[in-house]
Amino acid sequence: MSQFKSQDHEYMSRAITLAKRGKYTTTPNPNVGCVIVKDGEIVGEGAHLKAGEGHAEVHALKQAGAKAAGATAYVTLEPCSHYGRTPPCAKGLIDAGISKVVAAMVDPNPQVAGRGLAMLEAAGIETAFGLLEPQARALNNGFLKRMEQGLPFVTCKLAASIDGKTALNNGQSKWITSDAARLDVQHHRAQSCVVLSGADTVIVDNARLNVREALLEDCDYPQSELRQPVRAIIDSQNRLTPDLALFSITSPVIIFRRTIDNSKDWPYFVEQVVVPEINGKLDLRAVLSTLAEKQHNYVWLEAGATLAGVMHERGLIDEYIVYLAPKIIGSGSGLFNTVPLQSMAQIPELVFDDVRPVGPDLKITATKEK
Amino acid sequence: MSQFKSQDHEYMSRAITLAKRGKYTTTPNPNVGCVIVKDGEIVGEGAHLKAGEGHAEVHALKQAGAKAAGATAYVTLEPCSHYGRTPPCAKGLIDAGISKVVAAMVDPNPQVAGRGLAMLEAAGIETAFGLLEPQARALNNGFLKRMEQGLPFVTCKLAASIDGKTALNNGQSKWITSDAARLDVQHHRAQSCVVLSGADTVIVDNARLNVREALLEDCDYPQSELRQPVRAIIDSQNRLTPDLALFSITSPVIIFRRTIDNSKDWPYFVEQVVVPEINGKLDLRAVLSTLAEKQHNYVWLEAGATLAGVMHERGLIDEYIVYLAPKIIGSGSGLFNTVPLQSMAQIPELVFDDVRPVGPDLKITATKEK
Repeated sequence: MSQFKSQDHEYMSRAITLAKRGKYTTTPNPNVGCVIVKDGEIVGEGAHLKAGEGHAEVHALKQAGAKAAGATAYVTLEPCSHYGRTPPCAKGLIDAGISKVVAAMVDPNPQVAGRGLAMLEAAGIETAFGLLEPQARALNNGFLKRMEQGLPFVTCKLAASIDGKTALNNGQSKWITSDAARLDVQHHRAQSCVVLSGADTVIVDNARLNVREALLEDCDYPQSELRQPVRAIIDSQNRLTPDLALFSITSPVIIFRRTIDNSKDWPYFVEQVVVPEINGKLDLRAVLSTLAEKQHNYVWLEAGATLAGVMHERGLIDEYIVYLAPKIIGSGSGLFNTVPLQSMAQIPELVFDDVRPVGPDLKITATKEK
Repeated sequence: MSQFKSQDHEYMSRAITLAKRGKYTTTPNPNVGCVIVKDGEIVGEGAHLKAGEGHAEVHALKQAGAKAAGATAYVTLEPCSHYGRTPPCAKGLIDAGISKVVAAMVDPNPQVAGRGLAMLEAAGIETAFGLLEPQARALNNGFLKRMEQGLPFVTCKLAASIDGKTALNNGQSKWITSDAARLDVQHHRAQSCVVLSGADTVIVDNARLNVREALLEDCDYPQSELRQPVRAIIDSQNRLTPDLALFSITSPVIIFRRTIDNSKDWPYFVEQVVVPEINGKLDLRAVLSTLAEKQHNYVWLEAGATLAGVMHERGLIDEYIVYLAPKIIGSGSGLFNTVPLQSMAQIPELVFDDVRPVGPDLKITATKEK
């Protein structure tokens, strides 16, 4: 990317930092940041914070005011070209007299897909893209996967001892990992669109699977603005009942099952969705497509060994986050129930992306090999 | 340690670096380094390289020659005071006219235990100790544990997938971890006094458990000087046979068992040791005491889930090194077979000491909480 200078990197880096401000709130929209620079000075900054409200460019242009004329705009995603809930940002940049737009990446959204940059060029504005693209893509793993593949990005959360055990043989599991690790999970839940789990987890742990907002300390807007992720539960045997703690939280629940269960009195925020079967099991790929159709970008999978096992076997997991506690349990329950492999060559290759301490535990992130 | 200045730290650091030169060869002796400083200049350096040969102080004094008079000696371990295979180093330092000795730590060897420093002081030499003691202790985990507790330091080597599996259900396990991880294991074997394993591993994997010297690239003396660790095998059922690959390497093997097996024609380098039983199993603590009595400092445990499980349950493991491959196996064999625990409170607490990448794998070191 020799077309870019070190100042360009600096401004785009700033735009990426701004984009992260929306990480708990923008879904189904992407996280986007924008910086407007005139004569080597930042005159406007903005981030997209919430779907339906101003895009990053709108905030930055507003701040820049008349200084936008002749300035350069750095945006982490191609400006939009279509009328959605807000007018197209490309038009806003043109109207403000911006003379150059640098985008980190083209927007794969079929409603944009290069048309934003084309609209700018047609108006005589110089454009460039590809600056810090990997970092910009990382802001929006979920949005990009949904746009590109019609599926949400799925992270499988695991918590285990060094020897890969999640519970004692008698079922006890509270707690293998530390308070710090469990707090970290709250941050992941809060950034996800959907927390996906199975009926077993909901029944056995009486799990609520919600975000306890009071635990989030790193967002700089009112906690009342935070949204709860949708809780999606696989319940192929219609085992859930409305008295479970899950339903004590007034926040959307989607239950995926073979047949609608109208024998029980479900709260208003519960939706039941019938999913076809594949090899005698609910088709989990269809579950994910349905979630993507509902504009959910990012799924946080917190499941027992059976559901995690099938999700893994079907190749539906993009990322594995393991909280590893410095303990050895020995005999106990494992992380994945799967059909035994016949040869080592069948093991899918992953790569370790990140390892960091979280309290006394390790947080290990592994993804599919790129 | 306010008595020490920054130059003192620098010289002791250098002595610790020198001590590491002996890590493949000094056993049963400790690793020791020595630096002699006169008028702010290093005039002599030495390391103990091999039991029976010169101690670190001897090499450093030889290099310093006449400059030793009035100089300060920095040693990572208290100079010895007894006539062993070599004369006492304290005497050497006195004879050379050294005026001050700084030791990182007192030698817990009952033959020394402060007598070295006392001998120096009696000769009018100024002494100090405790400089960089933790780093100096880390040089000699094995030697120190043997001196202090009459047991060797035991490291349990584990290699598994992210989900803690060591093999497929059908037994296949070659290879879960990378070439880089297996090479790293060679370095640990080479630094250990004993590679401890079970009859199962020796029979099923036809393992030789030796060091392939050609793989060691970080020692600066002839490979012919390297020693092979003793291979110690637990064989409570007398299942080993002389035709196994283990016995194709001409290097000491100790077999621990309930009863001597004289029905087979063992090679000359094989020793059979009878161990008492405890709860119907060989007393593994007695195995370790026997190894310590034979002056073995450091045991590298490479065992299957049964032996590793019992060693763990009996609290005989000081350090766990896990090579974690970026793979998920699902159904497969686990790391430890143990008696199921009844409550979470029974899980012994460990701490993560170190995490680093080794090729595509992670190497995770956990130890007992200090």
